[in-house]
Amino acid sequence: MIFDNGRRATGVPAGTLLSQGSRTRRVILARALRIAAREGLAALSIGRLAKELEMSKSGLFAHFHSKKALELATVEMANEVFQNAVLRPARASERGIKRVWALCDLWRSHVERRVFSGSYFFTGALFEYANRPGPVSKAIKNATQEWLKALAKAVADAQDQREIGRGLRADQIALELNGKLLGAHCAYLLENGDFFRKAPSTLLGRLRELATNAIPARAFESVGAWERYLKTQH
Amino acid sequence: MIFDNGRRATGVPAGTLLSQGSRTRRVILARALRIAAREGLAALSIGRLAKELEMSKSGLFAHFHSKKALELATVEMANEVFQNAVLRPARASERGIKRVWALCDLWRSHVERRVFSGSYFFTGALFEYANRPGPVSKAIKNATQEWLKALAKAVADAQDQREIGRGLRADQIALELNGKLLGAHCAYLLENGDFFRKAPSTLLGRLRELATNAIPARAFESVGAWERYLKTQH
Repeated sequence: MIFDNGRRATGVPAGTLLSQGSRTRRVILARALRIAAREGLAALSIGRLAKELEMSKSGLFAHFHSKKALELATVEMANEVFQNAVLRPARASERGIKRVWALCDLWRSHVERRVFSGSYFFTGALFEYANRPGPVSKAIKNATQEWLKALAKAVADAQDQREIGRGLRADQIALELNGKLLGAHCAYLLENGDFFRKAPSTLLGRLRELATNAIPARAFESVGAWERYLKTQH
Repeated sequence: MIFDNGRRATGVPAGTLLSQGSRTRRVILARALRIAAREGLAALSIGRLAKELEMSKSGLFAHFHSKKALELATVEMANEVFQNAVLRPARASERGIKRVWALCDLWRSHVERRVFSGSYFFTGALFEYANRPGPVSKAIKNATQEWLKALAKAVADAQDQREIGRGLRADQIALELNGKLLGAHCAYLLENGDFFRKAPSTLLGRLRELATNAIPARAFESVGAWERYLKTQH
């Protein structure tokens, strides 16, 4: 038994007690995730991983009995990394409009923070796999659905707390905000920094339109004003 | 020399005179496009194509000297199909806000019309290839840039004609509309039909906000009203 210190690389909190087998599995998956995030799931192969990790193919097969199993485990790990980078930290924010903001801002910044080594997860993966049958496609769709559900839940809570009006359905607002984030990510990939940098103010502008009078108007004056508002309310 | 009748399949207008070599090349590319649109560019291989088309591998190599060359030609063909489905038909609309609408509506409907056999081009391809070097990545980015430039040009024309205000830069408006379309496509893939069906009215709502008084307010009352407005103005 050893301690794992590579939190960022393996997704396991430092100090977690892992068996040698689990640790090896996570090291393999960390490398698989790195490859897939840059080049897509199709770029994964047992042979390539064995070479890069200087392991035997049979050693890798002991952990993943097939390429499909490896793909599926990589998607699950990507989802874990996404959850740790976006969904979990958002729970530190109060329920309601603040959590809507936290989710969107953490999503936007996970691009900038380069949480993944490339842009494939989960937008590239979703558009590549959506029309295909099988468990890998399903796992990819589920990961996106989980994100959208968390966002819709935060919007619904904000509606319950009368911070966001009830004119639009929570799930539809979540899909709309998701579109804004995808558009910003696309601009980022095409090196249109202006548009990407303006994403927080665009998102805040939309929240202002959606908000009720329960939120003071001054909070929406700028992203700085909003951040001050978030701090003073805790 | 033969006539090519498979317009949809090969992207060549019916009746175009092609040499046998060009025709074979296009038949190969049509199949390659079909595979890549569903499963991504990485799913392409000379071996698979040879098997599916019942051709010899050496016959395929005579047309495409490498997998990279095949991928590049497939991206070029995908771009041609996209241009024929979206960019070219939009030119039938008057310059200005009408063409902005035509571009967005043709983009939206290219999803519904299943112009590609899957959802990979160009969103999946962009998110998969953006972080990679080389000509395939460059061709994919160029295709997206061409689309965004056409949209930005239409917005700029609408600004010149005083149909859209000058408060926002044309390229930034184009990126914003692109985000709305990506969000709608994402909802479509996740089988959220409500959100996808509402895309025309969402887009029209945004055009109403961007428009100057030069466009009569009644034109924006509904998608039906807008379509009547488009017809009466020709």
